[in-house]
Amino acid sequence: MDLYPYLYVAQILGVVGIIFAFILYLNIKKKDAGNDVMQEIAGRIAEGAMVFLKTEYKILAVFIVIVFALLAWKINLWTAIAFISGACSSMLAGVFGMKAATLANVRTAAAAKQSGQSGALSIAFTGGAVMGMAVASLGLFGVAVFFYLTQRLSLDPAIMTGFGMGASSIALFARVGGGIYTKSADVGADLVGKVEAGIPEDDPRNPAVIADNVGDNVGDVAGMGADLYESYVGSVVASIAIAAATIGLTPDIQMGMMILPLVIATAGIVASILGIMSVKIFAQMSNPAAVLRVVTYVASLALFVATYFIVRALEVDNNIFWAVVMGNVAGVIIGLLTEYYTSASPVRKIAKSAETGAATNIISGLAVGMESVALPVIVIAMAILVGYKLAGLYGIGIAAVGMLSTIGVTMSVDAYGPIADNAGGITEMAGLGEDVRKITDRLDSLGNTTAAIGKGFAIGSAALTALALFSAYSTAAQVEVISLLDVNVVVGFFLGGIVPFLIAAMTMTAVGKAAFKMVTEVRRQFKEIKGLMEGKAKPDTARCVDIATRGALQEMIIPGLLAIIAPVVVGLIFGKAALGGFLGGATLTGVLMALMMANAGGAWDNAKKYIEAGNLGGKGSATHKAAVVGDTVGDPFKDTSGPAMNILIKLMAMVSLVLAPLFI
Amino acid sequence: MDLYPYLYVAQILGVVGIIFAFILYLNIKKKDAGNDVMQEIAGRIAEGAMVFLKTEYKILAVFIVIVFALLAWKINLWTAIAFISGACSSMLAGVFGMKAATLANVRTAAAAKQSGQSGALSIAFTGGAVMGMAVASLGLFGVAVFFYLTQRLSLDPAIMTGFGMGASSIALFARVGGGIYTKSADVGADLVGKVEAGIPEDDPRNPAVIADNVGDNVGDVAGMGADLYESYVGSVVASIAIAAATIGLTPDIQMGMMILPLVIATAGIVASILGIMSVKIFAQMSNPAAVLRVVTYVASLALFVATYFIVRALEVDNNIFWAVVMGNVAGVIIGLLTEYYTSASPVRKIAKSAETGAATNIISGLAVGMESVALPVIVIAMAILVGYKLAGLYGIGIAAVGMLSTIGVTMSVDAYGPIADNAGGITEMAGLGEDVRKITDRLDSLGNTTAAIGKGFAIGSAALTALALFSAYSTAAQVEVISLLDVNVVVGFFLGGIVPFLIAAMTMTAVGKAAFKMVTEVRRQFKEIKGLMEGKAKPDTARCVDIATRGALQEMIIPGLLAIIAPVVVGLIFGKAALGGFLGGATLTGVLMALMMANAGGAWDNAKKYIEAGNLGGKGSATHKAAVVGDTVGDPFKDTSGPAMNILIKLMAMVSLVLAPLFI
Repeated sequence: MDLYPYLYVAQILGVVGIIFAFILYLNIKKKDAGNDVMQEIAGRIAEGAMVFLKTEYKILAVFIVIVFALLAWKINLWTAIAFISGACSSMLAGVFGMKAATLANVRTAAAAKQSGQSGALSIAFTGGAVMGMAVASLGLFGVAVFFYLTQRLSLDPAIMTGFGMGASSIALFARVGGGIYTKSADVGADLVGKVEAGIPEDDPRNPAVIADNVGDNVGDVAGMGADLYESYVGSVVASIAIAAATIGLTPDIQMGMMILPLVIATAGIVASILGIMSVKIFAQMSNPAAVLRVVTYVASLALFVATYFIVRALEVDNNIFWAVVMGNVAGVIIGLLTEYYTSASPVRKIAKSAETGAATNIISGLAVGMESVALPVIVIAMAILVGYKLAGLYGIGIAAVGMLSTIGVTMSVDAYGPIADNAGGITEMAGLGEDVRKITDRLDSLGNTTAAIGKGFAIGSAALTALALFSAYSTAAQVEVISLLDVNVVVGFFLGGIVPFLIAAMTMTAVGKAAFKMVTEVRRQFKEIKGLMEGKAKPDTARCVDIATRGALQEMIIPGLLAIIAPVVVGLIFGKAALGGFLGGATLTGVLMALMMANAGGAWDNAKKYIEAGNLGGKGSATHKAAVVGDTVGDPFKDTSGPAMNILIKLMAMVSLVLAPLFI
Repeated sequence: MDLYPYLYVAQILGVVGIIFAFILYLNIKKKDAGNDVMQEIAGRIAEGAMVFLKTEYKILAVFIVIVFALLAWKINLWTAIAFISGACSSMLAGVFGMKAATLANVRTAAAAKQSGQSGALSIAFTGGAVMGMAVASLGLFGVAVFFYLTQRLSLDPAIMTGFGMGASSIALFARVGGGIYTKSADVGADLVGKVEAGIPEDDPRNPAVIADNVGDNVGDVAGMGADLYESYVGSVVASIAIAAATIGLTPDIQMGMMILPLVIATAGIVASILGIMSVKIFAQMSNPAAVLRVVTYVASLALFVATYFIVRALEVDNNIFWAVVMGNVAGVIIGLLTEYYTSASPVRKIAKSAETGAATNIISGLAVGMESVALPVIVIAMAILVGYKLAGLYGIGIAAVGMLSTIGVTMSVDAYGPIADNAGGITEMAGLGEDVRKITDRLDSLGNTTAAIGKGFAIGSAALTALALFSAYSTAAQVEVISLLDVNVVVGFFLGGIVPFLIAAMTMTAVGKAAFKMVTEVRRQFKEIKGLMEGKAKPDTARCVDIATRGALQEMIIPGLLAIIAPVVVGLIFGKAALGGFLGGATLTGVLMALMMANAGGAWDNAKKYIEAGNLGGKGSATHKAAVVGDTVGDPFKDTSGPAMNILIKLMAMVSLVLAPLFI
């Protein structure tokens, strides 16, 4: 069968998606950016974010060049080229999304002042959509180009995995670095500003307040974007690799199965554009949560319809259609479960336990986190089973593609949160008044719920993608069985299991260290800058931005390298079967830790908010103080260490897949 | 070859061990029990402990009878009989050890008053030795009897696994029930007594103080005893099962390998007796920690010498000797690593982090806990690898036997801790004065270190035993490979991984619930009993004991049943390979969670003690208050949920092994 038409369409739609993102970007840019004070604040946030990205990319450039050289030497040149392309396009998506987010934040605040909630919602969402579309389109375009090259130049399809590895490596560094940045700034701003100095959140007198707002962008926009970018690329690449390795198919069917993930992703771009445009229609609805939910449903539905016809057109097994639908639905269910554990009765239980102090608050939060792993993992296990029954190993990969191909819109919903959060910060710093703040607060608190759902989605897709990559690895490394009765596998299995624990420990400690430096600096400024508390002098916010940047970038290096080096070491010392066990062990504990940390963190946060809303004594009570302890522990859980787990398991699988030839 | 002589010797030495334990018991009994006040307090503790055991055993009797009937129906009568024997002998060891411990506590206090440290150490240690010897001797005797029966009546050796399952089931209930009891009483006594009422620890006015002391016995003596009893029996049974299933050996060698674990265990009894008796020689040493360390080394050395000759006499592979030595050494290393993470620099780091509040204290404690899994798991993995290289799967089992066969003495060292702790309580309640309290405090604080080492040992042996049982299961269920590329295995694997998280969540919540009832009751008594605070009226301690008993027993049932039912359900629904994956996943996360929880808990506890010793502001400072939060979170971690993990993974493997015929 002729693949070229599909590949051309995929490349063209990749470009269309990028253009669409650019139009959205220009649309935001021409909106009113508010008064001078607002623009000045926004300018500092944008500058801080860009400085962080630039410094980060400089460090990563060294890493990329080294890995490029190693891949070119040990594997082959094309894989190395694919690697560098994957890495660069991930970084490009990051810059693009961040630019849009730092334009949208201040315009959201301005719109909240002028035209109220629906206008503000629309801008914040559009800002997120630039990131969402950039991620999806660049990912699709990149994979399509390399697929095209393998066909045109008769190259080994395996080189596409290099593209995935590039995306994954950047993702881990971006997630860890961004996560450390955002939490160290947050803790620094809160601990000294809110608790010690007693000034409100986002008060312009607080030296760390700009860094805190930069953190929302580098952590929750750029970090999350890189994360989903690699999930998206990973699931497509893994499915192609599995299809390429499946034996006993007619060439046409096999080609159909290889091109299918790309075609579904292409349809996903269109579906996402539909979803994003439909926000104009629904934005008038009074409940913003409903708006965001409806637009994702529009996109999913459009995807299902398209997939139905794509599967028929490519003449592959009809069951594949069901695997795609099932994957998407499983993602939604996991998201809803996450929402349940970070709201509803578990949160009230945690809040109640704060009545007897911080210790009981911590215990019940940890217990909720641990308990919350069960149902999502059962859903993941069932998705694996059903995916497999429908279409073998390919079914698992394609289910992940089904979860992720509407990423254009789901990422928009995710990235909307930190933009609204930033808008709130600017509102406060620029003194736009209570009424405007109420609107941005409402949009922000909705952002917390959508973030929780997004996290569940990210974990679910990561588990399936990791498993698909794992299968692809076993084929590439020519391992027939990875048996838990083989002692080497068991050794690898135990070693793999400890990596997520180590990375979690390292990143948690890193947040603590970076936050400590920030706390010291903020304290120093309050003490040494005369007139700061009275509002007569300005804080040195640039210095705080600098400290957060350095701290985050320093601390991201070791966990990032560990994740890349560990599988190589295990593979070289204990062999390819042990490496299989290693990936299995790491995937299991990684998924469990990711769920536990994300849900415990989200639940603590919302328990605190529940009390702040006036329950159980309200703000300032002893119960509230105890809940703040839980929230502080939850911060690195949910925004640094937890999200790092997703990428970790995919990255290690991706590295193993690319380097498989070394272990044969 | 003729096995009978070995079996007779094993049975005889089992009886000798029991007699030795009984002599130790009588020796304690005839010591001075102190004045009337002390005897009255000790009487109430002993009574509370016995009431708990009786009530617990009544509940377990129902469970035992039901499982007996099911086994007799579905498997065979002999397995059912072995099951009931294993369960009953575990309970018998519990009663025996508890009786001794509750005699020794008051006599330790009396000795501390009359003859100082060395006399007190000697009695506390002897009290622990009764439990240690009872556990080892009853275990050896039971396995030997059933081995004898299989030979005499030509029964399937598989029936011995029933004995192991009996021991394991009781162990889980005893550990979970005892763990909940001790922590709910502890939290109740501390929170209301120490924090709210401001009276010292172990003050006789505190209504929960008797329950607190009972808790030390039911949790740390009886619970720990049941735990190690099942490890011991489990490792021996697993090794026998592996030897019985090994093919391609001459009958003599195979018989030799089957009897070897029992012979080593027999030698272990002798070695333990030697070690226990040697305490008389070393008790005069000024450093009690050195005393306890030396006696375990004496026992280990004696075991090595004996094993060397046993291996030659039985004409099995010489490498087996090295596997035994390696297992024992690995256990010691894991213990030392545990000691490092719960003392030394990690503890100082946690204490330091308490300076910035409870949240940072919690974060760094969790980070230390997570980090602390790496080295012990690497040691476990290496022990597995080396054991396998030396003697195949059998090498893994026999390495666990090597770790556990000196249990008579290691258990004595463990059980010594809570006895010294109780002696301290009695000293305080009976008002024996500062000097005596100092001696008991010193013995008690040493107990914390030995307990940490003992926990590391317990986890290491549990991992090896679980793995040996896992291999035995795969043979019994006729599964050739348990491949992570088989979708059923993957499903089982994920399901298995969540069980430890669920059990941890349940038991942590259970402690919270039981503690809440206790807190309410203690508060009520302080409010309603007039003259209690002034020391004019007596508290209703019996009611607190009753509340702790009911709370613990209620809450132990669901986690216990889950552990037994989950593997059965997975096996029946997803098949025997999936059950293999299930056990693999559960073992991995169980070991990791056990280490994380035990070490974080121990480290928080010692960080608090470090501050109380006058560092970083000392007792009563804000730093100390923050450290108390960590300690309180750590309590259920290290004494309830963490230890339950060890038993959980062995129990599920044991259940699978016994029920293997159902899944074929």
